[in-house]
Amino acid sequence: MGELLRRFWQPFALATELPAADCEPIRVRILGEDLVAFRDSNGAVGLLAANCPHRGASLFFGRNEEAGMRCVYHGWKFDTSGQCIDMPNEPADSDFKSKVKAVAYPCQERGGVLWAYLGPQVEMPPLPELEWTHVPESHRYVSKRIQACSFLQNVEGEVDSSHVSFLHSKGAAAASAGIKDLRSTLPDYMARDRAPRFFVLPTEYGLAIGARRDAEIDSYYWRITQFLMPTYTMIPVPVGQPVSFTGATPIDDYSMIGFTVTWHPDRPLSQDERAQIESWLGVHTEVDPVTFKPVRNKGNDYLVDRALQRSGRSYTGIRGIREEDLAVQEGMGEIFDRSTEHLGSSDLAVIAMRRRLLEAVTALAERGEGPYEARKADNYRVRSAALVLPREVAWNEGAADALLARV
Amino acid sequence: MGELLRRFWQPFALATELPAADCEPIRVRILGEDLVAFRDSNGAVGLLAANCPHRGASLFFGRNEEAGMRCVYHGWKFDTSGQCIDMPNEPADSDFKSKVKAVAYPCQERGGVLWAYLGPQVEMPPLPELEWTHVPESHRYVSKRIQACSFLQNVEGEVDSSHVSFLHSKGAAAASAGIKDLRSTLPDYMARDRAPRFFVLPTEYGLAIGARRDAEIDSYYWRITQFLMPTYTMIPVPVGQPVSFTGATPIDDYSMIGFTVTWHPDRPLSQDERAQIESWLGVHTEVDPVTFKPVRNKGNDYLVDRALQRSGRSYTGIRGIREEDLAVQEGMGEIFDRSTEHLGSSDLAVIAMRRRLLEAVTALAERGEGPYEARKADNYRVRSAALVLPREVAWNEGAADALLARV
Amino acid sequence: MGELLRRFWQPFALATELPAADCEPIRVRILGEDLVAFRDSNGAVGLLAANCPHRGASLFFGRNEEAGMRCVYHGWKFDTSGQCIDMPNEPADSDFKSKVKAVAYPCQERGGVLWAYLGPQVEMPPLPELEWTHVPESHRYVSKRIQACSFLQNVEGEVDSSHVSFLHSKGAAAASAGIKDLRSTLPDYMARDRAPRFFVLPTEYGLAIGARRDAEIDSYYWRITQFLMPTYTMIPVPVGQPVSFTGATPIDDYSMIGFTVTWHPDRPLSQDERAQIESWLGVHTEVDPVTFKPVRNKGNDYLVDRALQRSGRSYTGIRGIREEDLAVQEGMGEIFDRSTEHLGSSDLAVIAMRRRLLEAVTALAERGEGPYEARKADNYRVRSAALVLPREVAWNEGAADALLARV
Repeated sequence: MGELLRRFWQPFALATELPAADCEPIRVRILGEDLVAFRDSNGAVGLLAANCPHRGASLFFGRNEEAGMRCVYHGWKFDTSGQCIDMPNEPADSDFKSKVKAVAYPCQERGGVLWAYLGPQVEMPPLPELEWTHVPESHRYVSKRIQACSFLQNVEGEVDSSHVSFLHSKGAAAASAGIKDLRSTLPDYMARDRAPRFFVLPTEYGLAIGARRDAEIDSYYWRITQFLMPTYTMIPVPVGQPVSFTGATPIDDYSMIGFTVTWHPDRPLSQDERAQIESWLGVHTEVDPVTFKPVRNKGNDYLVDRALQRSGRSYTGIRGIREEDLAVQEGMGEIFDRSTEHLGSSDLAVIAMRRRLLEAVTALAERGEGPYEARKADNYRVRSAALVLPREVAWNEGAADALLARV
Repeated sequence: MGELLRRFWQPFALATELPAADCEPIRVRILGEDLVAFRDSNGAVGLLAANCPHRGASLFFGRNEEAGMRCVYHGWKFDTSGQCIDMPNEPADSDFKSKVKAVAYPCQERGGVLWAYLGPQVEMPPLPELEWTHVPESHRYVSKRIQACSFLQNVEGEVDSSHVSFLHSKGAAAASAGIKDLRSTLPDYMARDRAPRFFVLPTEYGLAIGARRDAEIDSYYWRITQFLMPTYTMIPVPVGQPVSFTGATPIDDYSMIGFTVTWHPDRPLSQDERAQIESWLGVHTEVDPVTFKPVRNKGNDYLVDRALQRSGRSYTGIRGIREEDLAVQEGMGEIFDRSTEHLGSSDLAVIAMRRRLLEAVTALAERGEGPYEARKADNYRVRSAALVLPREVAWNEGAADALLARV
Repeated sequence: MGELLRRFWQPFALATELPAADCEPIRVRILGEDLVAFRDSNGAVGLLAANCPHRGASLFFGRNEEAGMRCVYHGWKFDTSGQCIDMPNEPADSDFKSKVKAVAYPCQERGGVLWAYLGPQVEMPPLPELEWTHVPESHRYVSKRIQACSFLQNVEGEVDSSHVSFLHSKGAAAASAGIKDLRSTLPDYMARDRAPRFFVLPTEYGLAIGARRDAEIDSYYWRITQFLMPTYTMIPVPVGQPVSFTGATPIDDYSMIGFTVTWHPDRPLSQDERAQIESWLGVHTEVDPVTFKPVRNKGNDYLVDRALQRSGRSYTGIRGIREEDLAVQEGMGEIFDRSTEHLGSSDLAVIAMRRRLLEAVTALAERGEGPYEARKADNYRVRSAALVLPREVAWNEGAADALLARV
């Protein structure tokens, strides 16, 4: 699975974590590797193995200056490609800097996020053309958090439209975050029909997942989630509302970095929408500004309010939607033993997502075939949607227009 | 050993931790399993595997309502037997709740303590008929603590009457807790004779352990400790005084829950006796009310007062008897490597207790014979005792009456 | 490697940690063993296995009295040789104290430091005759710290004169600690020539390491570091200045105790020199007085000041020389994977030091030959030095006089 993930670009940090040329480097750990990211004098982002290739001192303490990261132990300097470009402690006749290269991974900055590619150079794909990476900064809100569980537990939650009628079904969180579609003119179909039927459609980028609930006598309420290989998802919102994306980047087998983006393709997010996001009642969560660890986390039981839960005004007693998700995803343990599961028809999307990933792992491991999704960056120009369609209309046809990104 | 312990009822929580019907659930970890305990609408106690059998969300965050624990992820609900009784996210035609059962263990509540049986259903024995489980609440004081060591290290200390003349021999703790038998009219035989001879008598429930010290010219001072399979003990007290029981329930190989009970069979504990217990100078120790971790613990060296130790007014400089016990039991490390021991004649009871446990382990593992002690609940109607007997009287005969429970 | 290290005396504590006869014992962990050190009624230092040989209670909680350490569990008492000298809980006829011996290691106190020998008794060598262990207390300053890395990473740094021109090259630390030789009359040769040539000379005690920099047209500036088997080093200082020694004692494979000593052979350290040391800008570092953990440590990124680093007034932004060393040595990780290294000619001393250690390990493991360096204690009477020599003079001859200890 690690090899497969290395064939895709991985979001690893907010662009604001490296705010300026020659700023302080930051520690990064993804896919089990300890790395140091820096922005050089030209504004380019570098991502190097944390340990200097000379004698292993941490480049985190390095001097970021004049287009390179200089190790403080003996002054060796590396550019963003990893090439050693200065070796001042060696006499001229024994200088071998041209032969020394630090482990370095290509980086790109787009959509307020820093992305890295950790796979074979020759297989490097383009960045996925996600709509939110192309809108102006004003149209977008990006947040980052650390989750104490395997990335898969997050993706399973994101593709699972079924849990919304329960986990997020009541209380302030639900109301404020549009869960009940309060901001749309739709009735509360999710509360009325809590057992949706799932339909999964394989696509060029992953899966389109339709969850069908009864609406009126002649119509269905469709919530369509996008799963984009390998760990990206978009949860459904009523057409016209800001859309939300989540990406899960493994730190290692036991933890992950979650990136959540909310954007409106056509206009800046309003002051009210930003305030709503920063109320932390929705899919973005409040984090420690240095460690990105959620404020309401596993260690403090997400500050669950049992009286509130008992009152029925909240299903969980946990404050925000993301925090509710964290409680169930992290509560499974760091890696859940899935041999103990009992899956039902409501888990169709979870099953299909796992199968898609496993097929890609098998293709790579057994036949050496890299994932074609990674190479087809344009296919990522999609959105999720929630909408009412006449019962006789096929959902993928009826929603086709709403599912296309326009930017 | 785990299989053997599963054939006995294990105390796992104070009844007050689940104070009312439909109250908050609590996390329980015993015998290496992560569990969630709850009290349902009818007051019955359930003990379920922590992870929901659907997709593994933690039932700790569940909704305890209408005679069942409901997982907040998708609303599946389980009764105390583990049976799934509601599956609201599945359409009626794909509902399979009758086929889903959570791992659940039988529970009983007696003596202010919650007990669980984690063995094979068909082998389930009755609860042991311990005297303190039958007295009114007013006659009894129950406390719980977490110990950072294997359960065996605790049991070894409890059956070892020899250490009392040293570890607990001086200071405020000794005085207040009756160690010197100050509250009896007996002289301080334990200080006068610090090398008791041990006599071990196999019984139907475990072992009766007699430690004989010289009393007067024609009498012996006998301290008789009860070891009740598999981890229960009663330390000796002068006849007529409140008796104390300790049970050690393994959390896993490296830690345990200790339950200590002090009771008087015939009358309520006096205000003075309760105050003495809550001075925490005796066998009950002060704990954090949420985590049950002792306030004076391994991490803070039990707040040892070296000046006090040097003064000779305390043998250890550690405040209470239980804390002195913790210092030696936890100080051995999480699991002590017993190949480095040097046992003497004073360790006879320790040797006999280990042998009894090992024989039962062997009988179960090699011959499939469950422990008969578990099945004979009535045999647990015993007490410990400390008393003076004429030298010519056999201790088990002379003390026979004092060792019988009357309630 | 552990077996080799056990053939040498290991510094394990400051003498002041056991300030008086019958004082409190201290916990010691070296070479992977948990031990307890105490000073008995006669002032002799004992070092015993932490767990009592009876039933494993921690001797740390023991009573240190009347020429022995008494376990508080059952009163067994041990002298500094480990011999059990009292067994008060056994009746006279079953006392077997003469047959019980605790694991105990020979200790010596010299130079304000406690030393232990953990090897085979019959191979016990004399203490190394290091000059600082023979000067009066007034002439010497000794400090101790815990480092969160393998001991080898410390020794590598100490023998590596090359890094001084970088890691310690600027700022208050450099100025105050004589790095720029400010207190000598020498020009700043280290800044002028940052690519010294290394010359390594095998000696009877280890290695003499010459780092040659250009001085004037007809002279070289030589910095001569001493490596003394197995983990002792002396870094160069201008002749006449106080000299500094560092010893690295493994706690286990992942951490070590560092001892640093600064001494003047001929006179007391001045008030100014002591104040300078306790400014913690040099090779001694400020530690927590109880745990000996550095105040500026891995957990707080050594309180690196990035603005200071950027200003150029400090190469690292880290305050003191020792802290800069900690940042690179601990930043390598607990045990650095040296297969990823790229060594150059400036790493000659590191290579030679490792080879010397590996040869000694091989001699012991394959041929049973103990290290002869340990047996030749007098060979340790050396100093390090920094001095200017005419270009035509061989360094080891020209510096011979300066490298000899006189006390």
